[in-house]
Amino acid sequence: MNIPSLSDMLAAHERIKPFIHRTPVLTSRVIDEIVGAELFFKCENFQKAGAFKARGASNAVFGLSEEQAARGVATHSSGNHGTCLSYAAGRRGIPCTVVMPRTAPQAKKDAVKGYGGRVVECEPSTSSRESVFAEVVAESGAEFVHPYNDPRVIAGQGTCSKELIEQVENLDAVIAPIGGGGMISGTCLTLSQLAPGLRIYAGEPAQADDALRSLRAGRIIADDAPNTVADGLKVPLKELTWHFVRQHVTDIFAVTEHEILDAMKLVWKRMKIVIEPSSAVPLAAVLKNREMFAGKRVGVIVTGGNVDLDKLPWQ
Amino acid sequence: MNIPSLSDMLAAHERIKPFIHRTPVLTSRVIDEIVGAELFFKCENFQKAGAFKARGASNAVFGLSEEQAARGVATHSSGNHGTCLSYAAGRRGIPCTVVMPRTAPQAKKDAVKGYGGRVVECEPSTSSRESVFAEVVAESGAEFVHPYNDPRVIAGQGTCSKELIEQVENLDAVIAPIGGGGMISGTCLTLSQLAPGLRIYAGEPAQADDALRSLRAGRIIADDAPNTVADGLKVPLKELTWHFVRQHVTDIFAVTEHEILDAMKLVWKRMKIVIEPSSAVPLAAVLKNREMFAGKRVGVIVTGGNVDLDKLPWQ
Repeated sequence: MNIPSLSDMLAAHERIKPFIHRTPVLTSRVIDEIVGAELFFKCENFQKAGAFKARGASNAVFGLSEEQAARGVATHSSGNHGTCLSYAAGRRGIPCTVVMPRTAPQAKKDAVKGYGGRVVECEPSTSSRESVFAEVVAESGAEFVHPYNDPRVIAGQGTCSKELIEQVENLDAVIAPIGGGGMISGTCLTLSQLAPGLRIYAGEPAQADDALRSLRAGRIIADDAPNTVADGLKVPLKELTWHFVRQHVTDIFAVTEHEILDAMKLVWKRMKIVIEPSSAVPLAAVLKNREMFAGKRVGVIVTGGNVDLDKLPWQ
Repeated sequence: MNIPSLSDMLAAHERIKPFIHRTPVLTSRVIDEIVGAELFFKCENFQKAGAFKARGASNAVFGLSEEQAARGVATHSSGNHGTCLSYAAGRRGIPCTVVMPRTAPQAKKDAVKGYGGRVVECEPSTSSRESVFAEVVAESGAEFVHPYNDPRVIAGQGTCSKELIEQVENLDAVIAPIGGGGMISGTCLTLSQLAPGLRIYAGEPAQADDALRSLRAGRIIADDAPNTVADGLKVPLKELTWHFVRQHVTDIFAVTEHEILDAMKLVWKRMKIVIEPSSAVPLAAVLKNREMFAGKRVGVIVTGGNVDLDKLPWQ
């Protein structure tokens, strides 16, 4: 395994700075009162392409040799990673292909195309996705950038918590959503070395709680087809992200669909920012486990803000 | 008429600073490209109680003598002014009564109560409102704080554009929504003296374009019962706001309901912030009149972010 190091993360931050936002940290007096803690929301919903994944994708794209870059990049994703890889490739001016199930929402396909990427459709099955993707790579020689099980991607995501501890002093804990584990692994990479006393937690939908069960079992458990409104969090851990999670995550909290939507609406209503369901999972976890966080200074990673406004999940 | 002066506005800013946010100015590369101008969004949706009206209300409340303050404040409003007056009164710890039609949305009544104010219901008619309100004032001796036709309120709203020109250099123009004209009057008060070269525009719903027709006619025209999704903009100009509008507003642009909703969704989708329909009117006006703003640096006042998330206007 090629484990990314602290210096990989630092190099990533230098490399991607021209292409990403140093996103703001917001606070809410009302939510602090409800929770009984001081929460610092790191707002990656304001990130380029609307999600933290612009960090990892930009690091992968801008780290390529000229020769490799000329052949472009490719991935399979029906979520923010595809959009963000297309964004980064567009900034470098190289080709990007995203393999997506033909059943994926049109808005997601349009987002990839909007940044100049190409969408290749497959059937909504793992076997179809793998064969179509293999074809794309064989034809183009494109570099595969995995959504999270990739050291370049993890190093890129780690730049988010580096900024957070530069922006907010004396945090006691940080909490992020966990799906495949890219954001949480980057967080572990950065904070375990730059802020070793700080506790790292994750929030996970109870209906897709494979990471929580993995942590309990001491090995990766992958669910077959979990279903949750937090659609960015359905994917399982892989070896690289498991490496970080098992070593550095203090605990993972599961939350119900109802709790996710309540937290999401609380943020929209009180903070006046648009966040996607996955981004509400950490706040839902804090609200559900107030005693754990009482009186603490807690960084909350808001991972993205890409929602279909015509089809909100509470309607 | 008691016309507020520049020094009233400056005094207001000192007075209310502990109770309001210096709201951020946001930009969007994507929207700038669409418009062909540089837009600087002054985000009063992040203001206390979710709207710029916290400025004027705080100025009125904190300017009261101890004796008057003890008797409290009162207003009639089914919108942000009622909520914001309740917020300001709560901060000073004095009574606040808001007279509202019994048909007003429950969310608006709850918002007033949430800050400690009292809601007194009237029938949805002007005569009922006036008689109920007169009773409230007679009983309590509360100070009436009009939503906009009040020099203390206008001086308070003027602090918004003072901050804007401190935050952004070399603006060519500022555009704000116009309803009763409180925000635009405060903007005129401040900018006509602190930035006299800067042009002041207003956006107005075509379905409630009484201010536009007033400006054309040279006298106040009030509509009977205008109907628009921008529910904060249904009220007519009054003598104080007309004083500022007729002197300092270069032009008013009318926009359709469809254009308002399109601009609102564009902001939610691209900027990831929650703004209310009234706040989208200036952007809709800029989008509709691009040639007027091409290449210019334009301040856009985003007046508030209070929407009913369970009943979005495009659904």
